[in-house]
Amino acid sequence: MHTKHTHSLALRQTAMGDLSVDFPLFPPRVGEFRRDADPSLPWPLELDFDYSALDVSLFDAPRCGPSLGLGAWGPLMPPLTPQTNLGEGETPFFELAALADWAGIDRPVFIKDEGRNPTWSHKDRLNRCTVSAAQLDGAPGVIVASSGNHGASASAYAAAACLPCIVLASSTAPLAMQRFVAAYGAAALAVPSERRWDLMARLQAKTGFHPVSNLTPQAHTGHPFAIEGYKSIAYEIFRDLGGNAPGSVFVPTGYGELLYGVWKGFAELRALGLIERVPQLYSCESTVYGPLHSAMRDDQPVVSVPSPNGSTKALSIATPVGGLRGRRAILESGGAALAMDDEEIEAARAKLAQSGLWVEFSAAAGLAGLRQQAARERLPDGPVVCLATASGMKDVDGAGEGLPETDGSFEDATRALRENYGLEI
Amino acid sequence: MHTKHTHSLALRQTAMGDLSVDFPLFPPRVGEFRRDADPSLPWPLELDFDYSALDVSLFDAPRCGPSLGLGAWGPLMPPLTPQTNLGEGETPFFELAALADWAGIDRPVFIKDEGRNPTWSHKDRLNRCTVSAAQLDGAPGVIVASSGNHGASASAYAAAACLPCIVLASSTAPLAMQRFVAAYGAAALAVPSERRWDLMARLQAKTGFHPVSNLTPQAHTGHPFAIEGYKSIAYEIFRDLGGNAPGSVFVPTGYGELLYGVWKGFAELRALGLIERVPQLYSCESTVYGPLHSAMRDDQPVVSVPSPNGSTKALSIATPVGGLRGRRAILESGGAALAMDDEEIEAARAKLAQSGLWVEFSAAAGLAGLRQQAARERLPDGPVVCLATASGMKDVDGAGEGLPETDGSFEDATRALRENYGLEI
Repeated sequence: MHTKHTHSLALRQTAMGDLSVDFPLFPPRVGEFRRDADPSLPWPLELDFDYSALDVSLFDAPRCGPSLGLGAWGPLMPPLTPQTNLGEGETPFFELAALADWAGIDRPVFIKDEGRNPTWSHKDRLNRCTVSAAQLDGAPGVIVASSGNHGASASAYAAAACLPCIVLASSTAPLAMQRFVAAYGAAALAVPSERRWDLMARLQAKTGFHPVSNLTPQAHTGHPFAIEGYKSIAYEIFRDLGGNAPGSVFVPTGYGELLYGVWKGFAELRALGLIERVPQLYSCESTVYGPLHSAMRDDQPVVSVPSPNGSTKALSIATPVGGLRGRRAILESGGAALAMDDEEIEAARAKLAQSGLWVEFSAAAGLAGLRQQAARERLPDGPVVCLATASGMKDVDGAGEGLPETDGSFEDATRALRENYGLEI
Repeated sequence: MHTKHTHSLALRQTAMGDLSVDFPLFPPRVGEFRRDADPSLPWPLELDFDYSALDVSLFDAPRCGPSLGLGAWGPLMPPLTPQTNLGEGETPFFELAALADWAGIDRPVFIKDEGRNPTWSHKDRLNRCTVSAAQLDGAPGVIVASSGNHGASASAYAAAACLPCIVLASSTAPLAMQRFVAAYGAAALAVPSERRWDLMARLQAKTGFHPVSNLTPQAHTGHPFAIEGYKSIAYEIFRDLGGNAPGSVFVPTGYGELLYGVWKGFAELRALGLIERVPQLYSCESTVYGPLHSAMRDDQPVVSVPSPNGSTKALSIATPVGGLRGRRAILESGGAALAMDDEEIEAARAKLAQSGLWVEFSAAAGLAGLRQQAARERLPDGPVVCLATASGMKDVDGAGEGLPETDGSFEDATRALRENYGLEI
């Protein structure tokens, strides 16, 4: 009942913004690539597709039958293995009326809740693609450096693919994140973050395990199949808006893979003649590093920030290097690079919790960015979308207190409600 | 684009299995109800609908547009408020091929992953209904007694409805569960479990807050609108199987509301002429209480188990009273009441994690039940469905260790991989 569109139209690997670069689809080029045109920086690769063969009814096909995960968008995805289907994607997209008022705007605000993926973050869209690539490439295992959502997601997909997985994580991640990284049976170690990428490269060379996270610290270029999975977010938003693009999308941003993937999805829809323009994309970083914000301000292709400007609870987006893909997404969509401090992010996080959504601290950066930008200038016409990238469960730490205790008598309970919550019974 | 079927066809409140009982739809009868026919036990109420007015194309309508949550099944739901739409339901349903072999059967095993709801458990389907009822009834707040998923879900929906919420929880719940219960701004207290129901009744009487959990310890009867939300699980499975019923469904079971709701959904589909028979339903309890298992074995309407038979990690299904609704679902579907010890549940939990799904310990009881039952007798024809009720994040506790540490050198990392995981590099 759902066999119509499943095989991939991916043709080859090419370079971001330079279609003259041409490599066969397999093996995935996971190492460093430098363009002849500009050898000063490692450059991201991505996939090119046979768009002329695409049946665009893909975008209005009704969803029916068992979940295919990203297989539902098979023609515009890299080749995906059936074993790695965990039902990722198709995350709820809905308006939360209270948010427009709060952000001070007069158009509807939609949440795309990526905390409803198989491992409760957007990273599952990436790992469906990269772990499929590892499996199709005949890799003996998967290796990933990440103390958070990416590492846990990769280990879930490796488990589904029956591949061993090494995760180079961190002992400073929240307790829930550490348990999460270990939950799927990966060989997970806590590694000092400054030695992580070097160790990963050495372990990868020795084992032949397929790397599904970045190997190029100078400029994050990632896995060549990685960002294709994120395109599906654009497709789902387009379809759920009845075949329209929103006016703007606010994206919590670390290395910028998500941002670029969402941009590429909308850019494809425009190239296919299905929408007139790509929504303005806003990257939402933490001010403690904010490399993309700096790269845009100073017109640099890549910015590396050696040391943090303070501390932040937005661990999943606190990354020291940015540029390249993120710049392209912002420049070509007419958006902007935003940076938020923890106070702004916490206000957005609290507003979402008060509206019934408990998101990871980093995941609230999208809504925080919307509020910041709306105070600065009028947003383009059309609905506003905030991506909420992960579940609040990820932030659970061993620190902090349990619930206020009472002996269960009416008198003591009413006292506790009054003293702790100001509730007069 | 999705306005076709939204208004509720709910007519009235009636009694489970006794349609002569007749109360208007509002106000919801949240207190104890005793039938004249049998005043020895409090009896569950449920809703009756104007089935003759139903357009059955509801069940094959394509999903499109922004998520309506359970509003997608509006005609067969209680009246739902738009504010409480958090995009609940429409959880992924997919086959995991490795599970059939593991359970020793020769038919496909599907997972319905309820850990992908707004608060990562099936309870969101219930609370969309009960908190809507509170809102429509003009209640000044919501009150719930639960140390786990139910309490946190109720507080999320209360937040969405802008209603204050009191949660009577427990200090012995896992750390993640305590944080979760407090995350949405409810007034949450830790209360000794034996005093919880009495305190709830007194607070409810004093405040007029709408109770969305049970008030009748003698036999769990719950909120009269509660189980209607769970019917949607049956509808979604039916639709995703292309308009067919599975052969059997294995349901992690505490008080039996989920089990009864799933049964009622399939029973409605049969009454509407859409399926020929209801799948066999199997309740999957923990052996430490197992009241429904005892009620079935001893042919008692309700069984109360005063003290646990050992301890269990299956906290979300370790409930001391069962019967009534659970018995009806099992007897009318030709299923059975199963009970599993922690070793059996742990084996199922580990198998799911090795397949890429990290579920709450209690949520693995469905798959554990399948394996137990398959060893006992041949399952009916047709696909097998295991409900996975909640996310593994809920089990994160302060006890236990972090990840093995390494200094990040190749030599130390390979040692740590060998010593901790037996991985020879």
